[in-house]
Amino acid sequence: MTVRHDAVEVIVAKRDGGELTDSQIDWVVDAYTRGAVADEQMSALAMAILLNGMSRQEISRWTEAMIASGERMDFSSLSRPTADKHSTGGVGDKITLPLAPLVAACGVAVPQLSGRGLGHTGGTLDKLESIPGWRADLGNAEMMRQLEDVGAVICAAGTGLAPADKKLYALRDVTGTVEAIPLIASSIMSKKIAEGTGALVLDVKVGTGAFMKDLDRARELAETMVALGTDAGVRTVALLSDMSIPLGLTAGNALEVRESVEVLAGGGPADVVELTLALAREMLEAAGTTDVEPADKLADGSAMDTWKAMIRAQGGDPDAELPTARESHVVAAPASGVLTRLDAMAVGMAAWRLGAGRARKEDPVQAGAGVEMHAKPGDAVTEGQPLMTLHTDDADRFERALEGLLDGVEVTADASSYTPRPLVIDRVS
Amino acid sequence: MTVRHDAVEVIVAKRDGGELTDSQIDWVVDAYTRGAVADEQMSALAMAILLNGMSRQEISRWTEAMIASGERMDFSSLSRPTADKHSTGGVGDKITLPLAPLVAACGVAVPQLSGRGLGHTGGTLDKLESIPGWRADLGNAEMMRQLEDVGAVICAAGTGLAPADKKLYALRDVTGTVEAIPLIASSIMSKKIAEGTGALVLDVKVGTGAFMKDLDRARELAETMVALGTDAGVRTVALLSDMSIPLGLTAGNALEVRESVEVLAGGGPADVVELTLALAREMLEAAGTTDVEPADKLADGSAMDTWKAMIRAQGGDPDAELPTARESHVVAAPASGVLTRLDAMAVGMAAWRLGAGRARKEDPVQAGAGVEMHAKPGDAVTEGQPLMTLHTDDADRFERALEGLLDGVEVTADASSYTPRPLVIDRVS
Repeated sequence: MTVRHDAVEVIVAKRDGGELTDSQIDWVVDAYTRGAVADEQMSALAMAILLNGMSRQEISRWTEAMIASGERMDFSSLSRPTADKHSTGGVGDKITLPLAPLVAACGVAVPQLSGRGLGHTGGTLDKLESIPGWRADLGNAEMMRQLEDVGAVICAAGTGLAPADKKLYALRDVTGTVEAIPLIASSIMSKKIAEGTGALVLDVKVGTGAFMKDLDRARELAETMVALGTDAGVRTVALLSDMSIPLGLTAGNALEVRESVEVLAGGGPADVVELTLALAREMLEAAGTTDVEPADKLADGSAMDTWKAMIRAQGGDPDAELPTARESHVVAAPASGVLTRLDAMAVGMAAWRLGAGRARKEDPVQAGAGVEMHAKPGDAVTEGQPLMTLHTDDADRFERALEGLLDGVEVTADASSYTPRPLVIDRVS
Repeated sequence: MTVRHDAVEVIVAKRDGGELTDSQIDWVVDAYTRGAVADEQMSALAMAILLNGMSRQEISRWTEAMIASGERMDFSSLSRPTADKHSTGGVGDKITLPLAPLVAACGVAVPQLSGRGLGHTGGTLDKLESIPGWRADLGNAEMMRQLEDVGAVICAAGTGLAPADKKLYALRDVTGTVEAIPLIASSIMSKKIAEGTGALVLDVKVGTGAFMKDLDRARELAETMVALGTDAGVRTVALLSDMSIPLGLTAGNALEVRESVEVLAGGGPADVVELTLALAREMLEAAGTTDVEPADKLADGSAMDTWKAMIRAQGGDPDAELPTARESHVVAAPASGVLTRLDAMAVGMAAWRLGAGRARKEDPVQAGAGVEMHAKPGDAVTEGQPLMTLHTDDADRFERALEGLLDGVEVTADASSYTPRPLVIDRVS
C-alpha cells in the first residue's frame, strides 16, 4: 500500500535539498507508472535529483519502487548458478558476445537481457541480429529452457521488467536528465535485480567514448551500483575499464560478430581477449565457481561450441556468411610514426554515421556498416598506409562519417612520451 | 528570425550552470509557445533555472521573448501619461480599488490589467465582480475609450498578451517551479511591459502572508523587476511592504469593496490609506506628475467620482447594495491584553476556506465570504470580545476555516516588548 502524496510536494522536497521519504518515493514512482504523475512533473523531479542528488537510502528505495512496478524473474530452479554482466556502453564493446558462452562453458548460466543501441555506441542485440535467422525476442519459458540446455541466452528484455524505468528512461532522454548518477544506477540495477540473476559483474566504462568521461564520476556510479546490488542480495562487483580508445579492431554490427567469433576461436585482438577473461573470472567468482580457468575454455573450443548452440537455439545459423556493406573507403595514416591516439568517440561517431547505429529508437541499422581499424595506439604506422576502412551501404554517408574522424587520430614521430593506459583501471566490490 | 536549436541542448546548458545565449532563449520560448518544445522539456528547464539562476541579461532576454510571443498594447495616443501598479499579492490587499481612481483623479491614466485569485490571496477581478453588473472583460478599443474618458480601467488581461507566460505559468504551478525569481520577475514584467504602460510601481509584499517570506528574496525580486522595467524603457520603482498582518480590516471580495469605498470617501483603515497614498505618490512621480497631492483628491471627493464613473463604465452600479454572506460566526479574543500578532497567512487561509478564494482556477468564489477583523495588532482587547467575524454562505465551512486561525493570534498582557512594523519597508528604484 502506498500513501497518497502530491507531485508538487515531492518535487519541492527534492528541489529544496531534502531527502525523500520511502513513502514519497513509493508513491511517485507508482503514480508516474500509472500516469497519475505527469511527464512534466517527473522531468522537473528528475532535474532536481540530478542537481541535488540522492542519499544511498533514497536510491535504494527508488530502485525497489521501479522493480515493484513490474514482474520479477526467478532462476532459482535452474541446476546451476547464474551470473550476468552489464556494460555502461562503449565503442567496439562486443564483449557480451564471447563472454556469455564462455562463462556458460565454465558451468555458470548467463541470462543476459540486452538492449539496442542509441547514439554512438552499438547495441548487443543489433550486433547479433546481423546473424541470419537469429531472433532477440524469447518468452520466459523459452529463456529458462535455453538456460538449462545451453547455459547462455542473450535476448531482449521483456516489457514486464521495471516498466517504470522504461517510461522514465524515455523521458530523461528528451529532458536533459540522463546524466544523474542516482537515476542511471537505479535504471540499470532495477532491471538487473528484477531479472533475478544471482551474481552481477558491472563493466563501467570511463573515457572519451564512454558515458562517463571522468574517473571520479565513473567510480561514483560503480560504487552506487555495487551498493544497490548488494542491498538487494545480488553478489555484485564492478570493473572500471578504459574507453578512451575503441575495444578491438572493429566497431559495427556484423564486423563485431566476426571479431567475437575470432576470440571464441582462440584468436582475436588482445584487448578484447583480456577484458573478456577478466569479466569471466569475476562472474565465475561472484557465482561461486572458482575452479575453472576460462582461458582453457577458449583454447579447447568449448566456448565456441556453446556460442554455436546459443545462436542455433535462437534460430540463427552460426556458420552462415555474415553480411558485408556494399561500399568501403580507406582512411590513410596522416603521417609516419607511432599511433598515439585513436579516439573512441571519434570512431564511434563515424560508425554511427556510417549506419551502424541509430539516432532515434525507431531507426533501422545496417548490419554491415562500421569502422575497421588496422592499427591501434602503440602501433607504428607509415604515412599513407591504410589506418581504417569505413563500411556502409550508402556511399553518400562517407562525407559525414569522415568529419572529425582524423581529429581523433594522432601520429607522433617521437613516441617516447607515449604510455599505454591499462585496460582495467580498478575494481569496486 | 530565430536560429534552430534543440531543447536538450538548451536544458543541458542551463543544467550545467551556463548562461543561455539570446538565440537559445528566443528559440526555446518561441518553440514552447508553438508546442515544438514539450511541457516535460520546459519543466526540466524551469527546474534548472530555479536551481542554477539566470543572469540579468538572460532574464531580460527571456522577458523580451515572452513579450514577443504575443501582442503589445500602445497608450501613446492618450492625452495623458499612464502609470500602472502591480502587487505580488497579499491578504486583504484591496489597494488597486481605491488607487486606480485616485491616480486617475490626479491626472494620470491607469490601465490596470488584473487577474483572479488563486489560493489564500484574493484577486482584484473577484472583488470587483461582487458589484452588481460589473464586468471584467473589455475589448482593446473599449479600454482605450474608458482610459480617455474616465482615466482608469481595471479589467481582465486579454489572452493576446504574452501567451508564452500564460502557458509557462500553468506549467510552473504543477511542477514545483513557481518560486524561481527569474521566472516570477519575467512573468510579471512581460505582461506589464506588453501592456504598454509608461510608468510602473511594484508593491512587493514580504511576510508570512506573502509569496516572499523573507526580505532578502523580496528585495532580489524587486531589484530584478525594476531592472527589467528600466531596460524596457518603463519608468519602474518598487516598494517593499509588510505582509505579516492583513491589510485593513477585511479579507474577502464584497467586504474589501466596502472598505475600499470607505477609503475613497475619506475614511477607512489607516494602513490601507497609508499604502494607497504611498503608491499613488510613486505612480504620479514615475508618470512625471508631481504637482498634485493625492490626499486632497480623497478629501475633495474627486477620487470617489472617478471610482463611480469607472464602475459605471464597466456596467456596474456603484450605489447598489453589495452582497452579504448568509452565515456568520464570531471569533472571540482568547485573552485580555494587547493584540500583538494577527497572522496574515492564518487570516488568508480562513478567508479562502470560507469561500472567498479558489483552489482551482475553474472554481467559483462567494462574493460575501471572508473575514472581518475587529482589532489589529497594537489594539487592546478584552477576553471574549469579538476579535473577528467570519462570513460564508455555507455554515459547514466554519469548522475548516477555524482550524489554525487562533494559532495566528497572540494577545500579550505585557505588550512593552511589542513594536509595530513599518508598513513600507523599503523603496527600490
